[in-house]
Formats: sequence, C-alpha cells, structure tokens
Amino acid sequence: MDIKYSISKFQNSKIQDLKDSVSVEEPLEMRLKYKKNNSWKIQNISITMRTPGNDEDLMRGFLFNERIVDSLDQIENIEQKGNDVGDYNLKNVIEATINNSTNLEIGKLKRNFLTNSSCGVCGKTSLDSIEVMKKEKLDLSFPKIKEEIILKSPNLLMNKQSEFAKTGGIHASALIDERGEIIATREDVGRHNALDKLIGYTLNKKLINPKKQFIACSGRLNFELVQKGLMANIGFMAGVGAPTSLAIDLAKRFDMTLLGFLKEESFNIYSNISRVILKN
Amino acid sequence: MDIKYSISKFQNSKIQDLKDSVSVEEPLEMRLKYKKNNSWKIQNISITMRTPGNDEDLMRGFLFNERIVDSLDQIENIEQKGNDVGDYNLKNVIEATINNSTNLEIGKLKRNFLTNSSCGVCGKTSLDSIEVMKKEKLDLSFPKIKEEIILKSPNLLMNKQSEFAKTGGIHASALIDERGEIIATREDVGRHNALDKLIGYTLNKKLINPKKQFIACSGRLNFELVQKGLMANIGFMAGVGAPTSLAIDLAKRFDMTLLGFLKEESFNIYSNISRVILKN
Repeated sequence: MDIKYSISKFQNSKIQDLKDSVSVEEPLEMRLKYKKNNSWKIQNISITMRTPGNDEDLMRGFLFNERIVDSLDQIENIEQKGNDVGDYNLKNVIEATINNSTNLEIGKLKRNFLTNSSCGVCGKTSLDSIEVMKKEKLDLSFPKIKEEIILKSPNLLMNKQSEFAKTGGIHASALIDERGEIIATREDVGRHNALDKLIGYTLNKKLINPKKQFIACSGRLNFELVQKGLMANIGFMAGVGAPTSLAIDLAKRFDMTLLGFLKEESFNIYSNISRVILKN
Repeated sequence: MDIKYSISKFQNSKIQDLKDSVSVEEPLEMRLKYKKNNSWKIQNISITMRTPGNDEDLMRGFLFNERIVDSLDQIENIEQKGNDVGDYNLKNVIEATINNSTNLEIGKLKRNFLTNSSCGVCGKTSLDSIEVMKKEKLDLSFPKIKEEIILKSPNLLMNKQSEFAKTGGIHASALIDERGEIIATREDVGRHNALDKLIGYTLNKKLINPKKQFIACSGRLNFELVQKGLMANIGFMAGVGAPTSLAIDLAKRFDMTLLGFLKEESFNIYSNISRVILKN
C-alpha cells in the first residue's frame, strides 16, 4: 500500500515540486482470544509497524514463526477489529481466536521482557533457545538450487516487487521453487513483517514445500529473519544484503544454506554449499 | 565490531573460498535499577540485538529517546554486568542506576504490550502519543543547511562508516554541523541502535546543538527513527533511503525538515524546505 505525497526534488541544482509515492506505515495491534478456566480471555500480544494489507497472513505467520502456536490449526479464526481509523480508514487491530490453548505459550508473548537473568544473555543462548523449539536439523539433501536460478532471484524479487518500484522504500520476501517460479511474494516496510506475511500465506494455503523451494529477501539477513525461515522448515535462504554474525551462526547450527549479497552475477555462500548446484 | 568468516564467493561462474568480514550481532539485555519504597528494584526493560561496542551510549540514548528518563542527569551510573559470554567474551547485560525514580516511566517499559484498546490503534494515535511527550514544535528558524553540505553527507557517512566499508552490513548515523564537519558517527546492525548510540553519546558529552546540526542516516527513515531524532530536538534529518508515510507525517506535525534518497547529486525534501539553503 502506497500513497502520494507532495515533495520537492532537488536535482541538477534545481528544485522541482512533484507527487511521489511513499510506502504506508501504520501500527497493527495483535490480540489473542483464548479460553482459560472456561472463560474467554483477550490478550494484546504485540504492536508492530507494518504496511497495511495481508494483515491476516501477517498474524498467522507471526503466531507460527514465533511458535506462539504450534500449528495453524490452532487458529480458529482471524478478524480485523475496531473502527476505521486514521487517514486510510483502516481497522488496525487484528484478533486471532485460538481453539486449543493447552499448549499456548502465553509466556512467550513477553519474550521481549523476559530473561533468565542468571545465565547471561549471549548469541549462543539465543541459538540454544531456538533449539528448544526446533530439535531437528534440516535435511541437507534438499532443496537443490541451480546457480542460474539463484542469479535470477534478485530480478524475480524486483519484478514482482511492485511497490518497491514505486516507492523504493519497502522490503520484499519471495518463496521461489527450484525451477525459478515464484510461489508468492509479500512486501512490507518491515523486513520481518514481509517474511511473516509470506510464510503465513503460503503455510495456510499449503503452498510451502521445503524440498523444492527457497526464500529470497530484499534486505540484510539478521537473526530474526533466519529464525523465522527455520521455523517454517526452509532449508535455503538468500538475501540481497549482508548477513549478520548471528544469522550465519544460526544457519550453521541448523544446517540451513545461507546466501548473501545476491546479485545478477554473483553471491556469497555462508553455510552448506552442498545445496547449491554449480555448472562447473 | 566485525569478525572474519570463511565463505564461498560465487563470481564469474567460479567458486572461490575466502575470509570475509561480517558485522557482529549479539543480544543486549537492558536493566534499570531504581529505588521504590526505600528498597532497590531491578527491572529488565528490553533485549535488543545490537553490534557490541558503545553499549553505554546505546543505553543512554535509548532511555532518553524513549523518554523513560526525562534527562540524562537521572542516570547515576551505567555498568556492564554479568559474565563474559559467547564467542566474543562479552558482558551482554547493561544496568542503569536511576537516582530519581519519581518521574520514572516504568509503565512505558511495557509500551510494546500496551494500549488503550478502546481508541483503536492508528498512525494518528501514534503521533498524538508523541505530542504527550513533546508539546512544543521545533523552531523553524534553525538549523539552516546548505545544499552542498547536504550533497556531501552521504560521503561523510560512508567515509567515517568504517565497518560498513568492511562488511556492507551495518547502519550508520552521523551528527553533522552546518559547515559539514562530523561531530560523531555511530554504527550498528540495527538502525535504531545506531541512532540511540549517536544521541546517547553526543547528548552525554554535550555535543548536540540543534541550532547548527543535522542528522544523516544510512538507511530508510521510519516512524521510530524520526521519533528518536525529535526527542533530541533535532530539526533536520536526512536518510539515504526512503521515508515511510508515518515518518513524513511525524516530521510535518512537529515541523522537522525531513530529506530522503540522499545522493551525491540529488535528494528529496518531504517537509519544511525553509531550512534548506539553495544556491539558486
């Protein structure tokens, strides 16, 4: 979602007044509705700044990728709530009704404020905490992605990245198969939201097949992005930007293939090169 | 802070094994120590993924920019705590002792989980909430920045952006004066952290003078970044990337001059052009 703003462009030592497209950023409040002791509870779990659109996908992806739910089947219903607010007349509250709250990790909702303060926080602790949620490593035998498909992926991202072309200010994530076909693309001003939307949508539509697909992202790859991909069993992630140290460490720990600095003629491989099929 | 990783580079249809610099991402747990009813309380307030280094600046900037404290004078002491952990032997816990907790906004520590659910969340609500913290608009009579200084700023950011040159995976923020002199630069894998570090450092050293300075940032400008700049009374912010709708709305509401798509030969002005001095 984008909107036109009046701006002044300075170029060739001249100012020109024009209308330019800008990506919309608006808050979304996420709520859970669940039964406890036979009565319904409603809990606010997060406020995220996102680009409006595909909010249900975002909610599904967030709940699953953060393992607040173990499976999308636990989500009975998702509904936009509240009044139409702001300049864009949007419902900026979304509520997921959970049909089975036995395993609901309400504690995790507070993870930003958490911590076992005795252990000392470190990247390794973060990796260990992922291990608690995901005990098995990925299968190194798939997916196998050819170099020419990898080199095509920045263009695949951009072609479908419609809003990027207009505003230059949005991130995209795409699920791409081994033949270079795009399964789905999602965009958002927040990288993590674009990925949550992509995974929320494709998981819900049962379009994800980690044996034959990889994920390409427009920006840099940090811990959070690799964690989200891992939770959806994605074995191969590639970013147009640089990865962080912890993103690489996480990929290595769980045998994900991680690529960075994706360009039309080159890319860097940070882990598990065995899934990359080279011509030579 | 960066570290060398063994990677495989694919280029010209060939794989080459080499060592490449990667920006370090590690968690930092922030804690407050304050007196309540004559006894000391310790409260975890946030865990952020950051690039190690300048952690005290980060803590100061975060506490001030989020208005958890009203002034840096409220911070008696900042100390790295805990054991040396992880691959880099770091103390990843930082604790600020608050000497006057009368106005301490403990409630704000939970702002991620907050909300007055009756109002409906929207961008306007977010802008209103800033108004509660910051009642006065900025003074439109300063700073005045010449076009040639603005055009120089991407290079100023990059020259001092030492780690960016090595890893390509880090964000920078710089405080620059009207003559094009850099007051300070800070880098981090998180844009918001780079800005918190910059403001925490320059505010503490009393180097900030909004009458004669502006802030340039390496990435896109979103609501959070503009909010942080505003809290430090910065009247002029410029980003190498695109701004979001809410960043522009916030800048307009408080009369900040906001520039985007900063290049060596051009830039876009989204609000309050009066602070830009053009040759023609």
